[in-house]
Amino acid sequence: MLFAVRMDVDIPRDLAPEVRADLVAREKVYCQELQKSGQWVHLWRWVGRYANISVFDVTDNEALHRILWGLPLFPYMKIDVAPLAQHPSDLSAGEETA
Amino acid sequence: MLFAVRMDVDIPRDLAPEVRADLVAREKVYCQELQKSGQWVHLWRWVGRYANISVFDVTDNEALHRILWGLPLFPYMKIDVAPLAQHPSDLSAGEETA
Amino acid sequence: MLFAVRMDVDIPRDLAPEVRADLVAREKVYCQELQKSGQWVHLWRWVGRYANISVFDVTDNEALHRILWGLPLFPYMKIDVAPLAQHPSDLSAGEETA
Amino acid sequence: MLFAVRMDVDIPRDLAPEVRADLVAREKVYCQELQKSGQWVHLWRWVGRYANISVFDVTDNEALHRILWGLPLFPYMKIDVAPLAQHPSDLSAGEETA
Amino acid sequence: MLFAVRMDVDIPRDLAPEVRADLVAREKVYCQELQKSGQWVHLWRWVGRYANISVFDVTDNEALHRILWGLPLFPYMKIDVAPLAQHPSDLSAGEETA
Amino acid sequence: MLFAVRMDVDIPRDLAPEVRADLVAREKVYCQELQKSGQWVHLWRWVGRYANISVFDVTDNEALHRILWGLPLFPYMKIDVAPLAQHPSDLSAGEETA
Amino acid sequence: MLFAVRMDVDIPRDLAPEVRADLVAREKVYCQELQKSGQWVHLWRWVGRYANISVFDVTDNEALHRILWGLPLFPYMKIDVAPLAQHPSDLSAGEETA
Amino acid sequence: MLFAVRMDVDIPRDLAPEVRADLVAREKVYCQELQKSGQWVHLWRWVGRYANISVFDVTDNEALHRILWGLPLFPYMKIDVAPLAQHPSDLSAGEETA
Amino acid sequence: MLFAVRMDVDIPRDLAPEVRADLVAREKVYCQELQKSGQWVHLWRWVGRYANISVFDVTDNEALHRILWGLPLFPYMKIDVAPLAQHPSDLSAGEETA
Amino acid sequence: MLFAVRMDVDIPRDLAPEVRADLVAREKVYCQELQKSGQWVHLWRWVGRYANISVFDVTDNEALHRILWGLPLFPYMKIDVAPLAQHPSDLSAGEETA
Repeated sequence: MLFAVRMDVDIPRDLAPEVRADLVAREKVYCQELQKSGQWVHLWRWVGRYANISVFDVTDNEALHRILWGLPLFPYMKIDVAPLAQHPSDLSAGEETA
Repeated sequence: MLFAVRMDVDIPRDLAPEVRADLVAREKVYCQELQKSGQWVHLWRWVGRYANISVFDVTDNEALHRILWGLPLFPYMKIDVAPLAQHPSDLSAGEETA
Repeated sequence: MLFAVRMDVDIPRDLAPEVRADLVAREKVYCQELQKSGQWVHLWRWVGRYANISVFDVTDNEALHRILWGLPLFPYMKIDVAPLAQHPSDLSAGEETA
Repeated sequence: MLFAVRMDVDIPRDLAPEVRADLVAREKVYCQELQKSGQWVHLWRWVGRYANISVFDVTDNEALHRILWGLPLFPYMKIDVAPLAQHPSDLSAGEETA
Repeated sequence: MLFAVRMDVDIPRDLAPEVRADLVAREKVYCQELQKSGQWVHLWRWVGRYANISVFDVTDNEALHRILWGLPLFPYMKIDVAPLAQHPSDLSAGEETA
Repeated sequence: MLFAVRMDVDIPRDLAPEVRADLVAREKVYCQELQKSGQWVHLWRWVGRYANISVFDVTDNEALHRILWGLPLFPYMKIDVAPLAQHPSDLSAGEETA
Repeated sequence: MLFAVRMDVDIPRDLAPEVRADLVAREKVYCQELQKSGQWVHLWRWVGRYANISVFDVTDNEALHRILWGLPLFPYMKIDVAPLAQHPSDLSAGEETA
Repeated sequence: MLFAVRMDVDIPRDLAPEVRADLVAREKVYCQELQKSGQWVHLWRWVGRYANISVFDVTDNEALHRILWGLPLFPYMKIDVAPLAQHPSDLSAGEETA
Repeated sequence: MLFAVRMDVDIPRDLAPEVRADLVAREKVYCQELQKSGQWVHLWRWVGRYANISVFDVTDNEALHRILWGLPLFPYMKIDVAPLAQHPSDLSAGEETA
Repeated sequence: MLFAVRMDVDIPRDLAPEVRADLVAREKVYCQELQKSGQWVHLWRWVGRYANISVFDVTDNEALHRILWGLPLFPYMKIDVAPLAQHPSDLSAGEETA
């Protein structure tokens, strides 16, 4: 089940540099594990912003919420979620959600 | 070069049914040709809306504008474009844009 | 899987009265069948508006989109969907989604 | 009398951890007592946000305000209230508000 | 129980003049009956707009919705409702809601 | 001359408790004196918010500005002012502004 | 008593040309009479828009509302009103409102 | 050449009182010199806000920007600028811009 | 003197095709004459929209307003104007406005 | 390939003055190098704001993102990007993008 997710990051300037570095490093590991598991299927940078546009493929809403809530940068993000469905003109939809 | 594009469709209610049917049919053909050419790489329906969230892979801004301007439903759409860049944590970015 | 859905209705004034009456009657039947099937689990009127606030319990995003797209009044509605998850303080969550 | 209530939580980052833990614990107790009393009838997490969507069943506006004002996290919340009425197509409305 | 209500009126220009005149006349009668019954307790014109700011005193949400839904101009209004509670500094609150 | 005024209060969390208590106490005295003088004619709490919806009856814009600017909590408020006029359907308008 | 008023004009395209010409001509006469009477003290065009930014000097809210409501183009305008007070740094305030 | 300018002031609460007092005093001097020079032609307080609505008469955009950028309170202001033109119905336009 | 101008075009669907074609043709001539005169110095299409982003170099606000008001498509455009000044880091500013 | 970019700057007040001065100086050098390289083709100050409106000419989205992400003031900016295409009425488009 697919969701489009937009994350805008705003890390407080006065966070200790080592705390920040640790957060960003853990975010990367967390994010790449979810890519390997096939749940974080697309990840793009929005040009000119500390933000990403992503697509998740998860079993249900609970799974998506657990993933997002667990993001190391969650406390410093604004997140918007749009549930997606197969588009009737999409040639590849069958493969992607199979 | 990737762009996230959101299209909200609002076909006027008083369009003649055959005009409407023709437009929608031509939109589908147009859309699927762009998928086959590899330019319209993702196409999803936004749940509960007559709208789609898409990703395009084009050579430049001019190409994207020609594609969008040429949509049979263009006069009845509101379109937002977000330019995308590779995300530093994206494991598949290399393959996708190769 | 639960979704909060808000529907704002705006039926065009110049719709023929019998067309309008037919639409509203079919909307009611459609809505009540979905309540009986257990998919439209809550339905409230927003005070002072031709709008409702609803909760759906469906198997996935595709099911929700099919339901909303099939609403007889869909062409005259603005629909917003918020995916819901169980709240950690919710005493009844276990029962409700069982 | 039913109200849909949305609460967005934003606890300041520099709150002492033990103060924060105490607040969150008291919020949970407060919330569950109101569920047991039948006043906080629905409570859901909004996927991807530190927010909830709730429905309250109270005797009047004064009762709702006392409940919301008394939330341990009230100073760190943005709250929106929508008064609800019975929907003419709601099959269960009779039972729910009886 | 008090509610602040704002109504913005937008009567379609092409409504037949006699239909319009009849609507406006019935709106006035309806509104004044509710004032006499003590339910529409305040009614002001917002300077420079075809809009009013009102306060209603009703038994519950259902009563308020029935009143607003029954307004002859309801189909041509945008209505916002804010539930009110007694303010702790209000000297006259006791009398007003008695 | 009547004005509808909405005040949203946001007292900084790190204000010293005794400063805060003093401010709130002085706000109450100030507010009640204006009620007694007949200038602050209505005062309601907006349910679920640290906000009020008020109506003032003052001689002119200058008087209203002096009152609002002098509020002990003014530095921590967002204030919106809507000038009001008599509504042609208001049965009590004559008495109220006499 | 001064008010800043912004008027955005949107005359329907299908208004008969002679009706439109008559409206615009009457608007001009009405507007200039109010300038001569000293009530419409400033009138500017907002560059690039069919809109004006104006300042009115009237005895009270009722007078301002009567003036705005009576504008021949009132049904085709969106009007915003901001009540003004003397600024403590304004050297000319004394003369202007005398 | 005329411009309507709106300035919303938000001086940080923790600015040292003598720094604040000095800023406000210098703002007043700066503002009154511009009034005397004929460049800051109108200055009003927006009722209920720490904000002003002003009109400037300057030789060009560069002159306006230098004035605004030089405001002692510039770092604590949000400024909106609307370029103005003569209104075809304005009886006094000729004199004012002469 | 430079201004950034954004124009969003929305030509009514029911405009007679020959009227529309005539408008668009006259718009092009008008636009190109202003380019030749050096007043419309930049003109770009906003990708995916029937809109342009332009820069004008004019003698004053009056000149800009006359140009915009005279656009054949003016009645079908929403126009936003931002006055520009030379940027202190701009290497070419001297040449451009010379 | 052209992009319109708007940057709103908000440097925290409590940044050490030498850090701030260093940032602003490096921003200027960075900006002017990009102008010399032909990638930052236009740069204007928005009158009355600590903001600029710019046009970039870059090879692709990746190049634009690297430039913007590398701005010394990036952490203190809000950036909006609009992809541009050649306008069919633009006389100079050929030269500019050649």
